Amino acid sequence: MAVYTEVSDDALEAFLGDYDIGSLVSFKGIAEGVENSNYLLRTDKASFILTLYEKRVEVSDLPFFLKLLEHLNDNGLSCPIPMRKKSGEALGKLEGRPAAIFTFLDGFSVKRPKVEHCLQLGKALAELHLAGDGFSMARTNALSLDSWRPLFEKSGERADTVEAGLYDGITERLASIEAEWPTDLPSGVIHADLFPDNVFFLKDQLSGLIDFYFACNDMYAYDLVIAMNAWCFEPDVMFNITKAKAMMRGYNSVRPLSVAERDALPVLARGASMRFLLTRLYDWLEVPPGALVIPHDPLEYWRKLNFHASVKSASEYGL
Amino acid sequence: MAVYTEVSDDALEAFLGDYDIGSLVSFKGIAEGVENSNYLLRTDKASFILTLYEKRVEVSDLPFFLKLLEHLNDNGLSCPIPMRKKSGEALGKLEGRPAAIFTFLDGFSVKRPKVEHCLQLGKALAELHLAGDGFSMARTNALSLDSWRPLFEKSGERADTVEAGLYDGITERLASIEAEWPTDLPSGVIHADLFPDNVFFLKDQLSGLIDFYFACNDMYAYDLVIAMNAWCFEPDVMFNITKAKAMMRGYNSVRPLSVAERDALPVLARGASMRFLLTRLYDWLEVPPGALVIPHDPLEYWRKLNFHASVKSASEYGL
Repeated sequence: MAVYTEVSDDALEAFLGDYDIGSLVSFKGIAEGVENSNYLLRTDKASFILTLYEKRVEVSDLPFFLKLLEHLNDNGLSCPIPMRKKSGEALGKLEGRPAAIFTFLDGFSVKRPKVEHCLQLGKALAELHLAGDGFSMARTNALSLDSWRPLFEKSGERADTVEAGLYDGITERLASIEAEWPTDLPSGVIHADLFPDNVFFLKDQLSGLIDFYFACNDMYAYDLVIAMNAWCFEPDVMFNITKAKAMMRGYNSVRPLSVAERDALPVLARGASMRFLLTRLYDWLEVPPGALVIPHDPLEYWRKLNFHASVKSASEYGL
Repeated sequence: MAVYTEVSDDALEAFLGDYDIGSLVSFKGIAEGVENSNYLLRTDKASFILTLYEKRVEVSDLPFFLKLLEHLNDNGLSCPIPMRKKSGEALGKLEGRPAAIFTFLDGFSVKRPKVEHCLQLGKALAELHLAGDGFSMARTNALSLDSWRPLFEKSGERADTVEAGLYDGITERLASIEAEWPTDLPSGVIHADLFPDNVFFLKDQLSGLIDFYFACNDMYAYDLVIAMNAWCFEPDVMFNITKAKAMMRGYNSVRPLSVAERDALPVLARGASMRFLLTRLYDWLEVPPGALVIPHDPLEYWRKLNFHASVKSASEYGL
């Protein structure tokens, strides 16, 4: 939940004056997203989301994110798009922060996805990958393979304070991922954070994707296993092959995976687990006493990583 | 900001099934209120607020609050009213908490009220007092005169850790308030917490009042000075007589104050300051390390109390 920046009456009025979106009817901070401050803004014309970018987002990345949403939407994907000011700009400044206003997407995220949700998510993810084709900008994945060892070193042997043996365990798993990481799979724009929070459904039909602030250029199949990790494990961290099968089937029906992509899924899934394990481990160890945000348990992803290490082929994911 | 209780998909679906308010389109936690969890809920028919009552609200008080909103609304006041279930009940249970769904009130609170807002607020407060007439239920003000001394004793000499001399200062002020407190002024239902947060405006017209969870039976003029304290001081805690004058004028235009009420305003204002000083002082001293909520500064109300102690008559409030 997140509203970090309070918006004063005068600043809001001045900011809205730059847009032609109607007059303000309602303005409420919403408990959504952890990186930014988000407000639900209603005018006499429509509902919108106002986002103020807090310091965890790189300002230089914002044009990529905003233009990407427009590109994806132009290519048929349902996602929020930034409203443009009278001046034509999509990005503004409010209370000293970069800020943008987005179209409001109907729907709500499911907390415990069912098989049918996984099927639709698979399709939508493939549609996203196709829709990103031809996008003129690029953004390196700052949280890919190359970043994992330096990130792990920041936590170092303190990992063992979370669970005995974790330092050696990660060291070993990381070496094997580095050794086997594929380099020539189909790549393009990926979401890179497609957790259930970021997917809306309306009457059990997927209505759109949100929160593209980790979007970057990387392997499509890597995006798929990030989503599989997020959607196809039960709360007790047991893998649900029925859900995975549905997700893979949905994905394949829109963008069939190549043989090389299928073969790479187990190592990609170990990598995807490593990425979330390491960021969560770091956040867990660095969280200041009295912090407002309780960090995610890194061990959830350590268990997922160990599951994938036992997988011999993509058939175990239902393919 | 507050979302304390997560609502699962299945629990929400079951809960909404008891109502006839349309099918769900959007569901977002909102950063509003500090006592309860609040969600903005949109269906294909309308927008609503879903409130889950957390432990700081007495469950036995809920029928008073819910029925009061209906009574006030029936008598012309703009405020949220609870939606009734198909069974006719206004109060339900969700995720183990008492819960209710309210109509959505357009408008938004002003963070820095101007004179015109104070004028309208004065009118609306008098309208609230008149609209409460004839309400069949009653609720004792748990935070009135009798509660202040026991509450002060819980903080005791620790008050001096906040500011040197505060313990003796409060002791002296409290004794004089107790000695002069009026007992025979016009009374009825009061809001008791009418801060700018709880008042919505739309195109600079007051559109409604919210958050009646401190509402109770007490002196009308006491409610007026609570509002004066909240609206008519500048951020540097300097009294703005122009705003007070406007608020008094607005109030008097709807419900003229009696001579006795006017004469009592200074001591009532000291009492209103004492009430917020003592609850804030207690919260300030009791806040656990690492708490999620940063308590309000009690000294703001100590300064207001001292201002009112220097006031000789209601004319200094612009009357």
